[in-house]
Amino acid sequence: MSAPGTLYGLGVGPGDPELLTLKALRILKAAPVIAYPAPDHGTSFARAIVEGYLTGAQEEIAIVVPMRTERFPAAAIYDEAAARIGDRLAAGQDVAVFCEGDPFFYGSFMYLFERLSGRFPVEIVPGVSSVMAATAASHRPLAARNDILTVIPGPLDDDALRQRIEASDAFAIMKLGRHFGRVKALLGAMNLTDACAYCERVTLPEERIMPLADVTGDAPYFSMILGYRGAEPGIRDAVIQRRETAQ
Amino acid sequence: MSAPGTLYGLGVGPGDPELLTLKALRILKAAPVIAYPAPDHGTSFARAIVEGYLTGAQEEIAIVVPMRTERFPAAAIYDEAAARIGDRLAAGQDVAVFCEGDPFFYGSFMYLFERLSGRFPVEIVPGVSSVMAATAASHRPLAARNDILTVIPGPLDDDALRQRIEASDAFAIMKLGRHFGRVKALLGAMNLTDACAYCERVTLPEERIMPLADVTGDAPYFSMILGYRGAEPGIRDAVIQRRETAQ
Repeated sequence: MSAPGTLYGLGVGPGDPELLTLKALRILKAAPVIAYPAPDHGTSFARAIVEGYLTGAQEEIAIVVPMRTERFPAAAIYDEAAARIGDRLAAGQDVAVFCEGDPFFYGSFMYLFERLSGRFPVEIVPGVSSVMAATAASHRPLAARNDILTVIPGPLDDDALRQRIEASDAFAIMKLGRHFGRVKALLGAMNLTDACAYCERVTLPEERIMPLADVTGDAPYFSMILGYRGAEPGIRDAVIQRRETAQ
Repeated sequence: MSAPGTLYGLGVGPGDPELLTLKALRILKAAPVIAYPAPDHGTSFARAIVEGYLTGAQEEIAIVVPMRTERFPAAAIYDEAAARIGDRLAAGQDVAVFCEGDPFFYGSFMYLFERLSGRFPVEIVPGVSSVMAATAASHRPLAARNDILTVIPGPLDDDALRQRIEASDAFAIMKLGRHFGRVKALLGAMNLTDACAYCERVTLPEERIMPLADVTGDAPYFSMILGYRGAEPGIRDAVIQRRETAQ
């Protein structure tokens, strides 16, 4: 019996293939088997990010998850994927699973991890999160000194959102999708619209970054709102003013 | 007059040189001038991370900041550094500033950014944050589904800490240093010790990851506590159990 392979959870970053880490690149090139989430129609975003780095000789396991937003992942899908991946690991092959952004930051990799980590060696390679990428793209520091930063999923109800926003200096609201209009209205009612930036498909060619006030229409799943309501706005105001002066 | 150079804020990740992104590596190798924070005694951590990638032909600007934890950065230090860097940018040279982790996530790069972004082109390259690296190293998913994640600076007082922790499903307490004992006692009083992992110098050879309950003594500045108190502990319990089974 050969030694088992290692399960790698590779953060592949927010979208720009150049935001892959050197470590993720090394591991993904060396893995004989790769796996990634894929929608039932269309291409896998995680695979698309790293497509240019694939060797062409790797076995591919697409984990097809129906793209119904916020649908709780069907256990059967991950059971089956874990079984297929487990077969390769048991045979001594390493398997690299591609994860958009970071594997353990709202990632579906955890569903494989919980099924396989007790039986096989696992290594998680952290990735650049979309929160940091959106912050970089919007040219505003996210958290400074003793700021409290809260990451809040958009599907929460208004009361929960309001309470968490009020307790933060900076906040990132993720998973907007069909909740965008409601969240935007809430921020308006809280008088925070002008403190917010809207960031969509960050680091991709179709990236959109703009003041929240300027957004009309819907938002895709891969969008977020960054907001700043700290007690120390001096730096941020200065930053925004300087940036506007430069344009 | 030549076109001005670009100021790059490069996230160099949490410590492992392999966690640099391909983009940061490309830019740091091409930049004629590099800059980084440095303590008044000892070596620069940000520079040490990327030391193996430096060309040897680059002008280096060390921004010497006295290493008194939580000391508010002296404006004069950044005024002077911005002036030196601004001279190079005005002369048409690109300047790459190395930032531990991510540039805009509790990073001192913002002090240069606010001084220079109005006058010169700026590009921020996001990096792998120590929060994601600690999560990966501790083998626990950080945030799942509709979890609320709060990043909380350790220097906050007990009431503020308690309030923010209670409003979160998962939390990361950063900047522990001399506040570690107090924060640990607070978590104990909240009955959360067993829900917390302690992570120190993640991704470096001297990395330490352990249950918070097992930590004795002090903690360095580069340490953090990850805690999980969500209403949906099922997955996390399973993960932890499986991991323990495997050891």
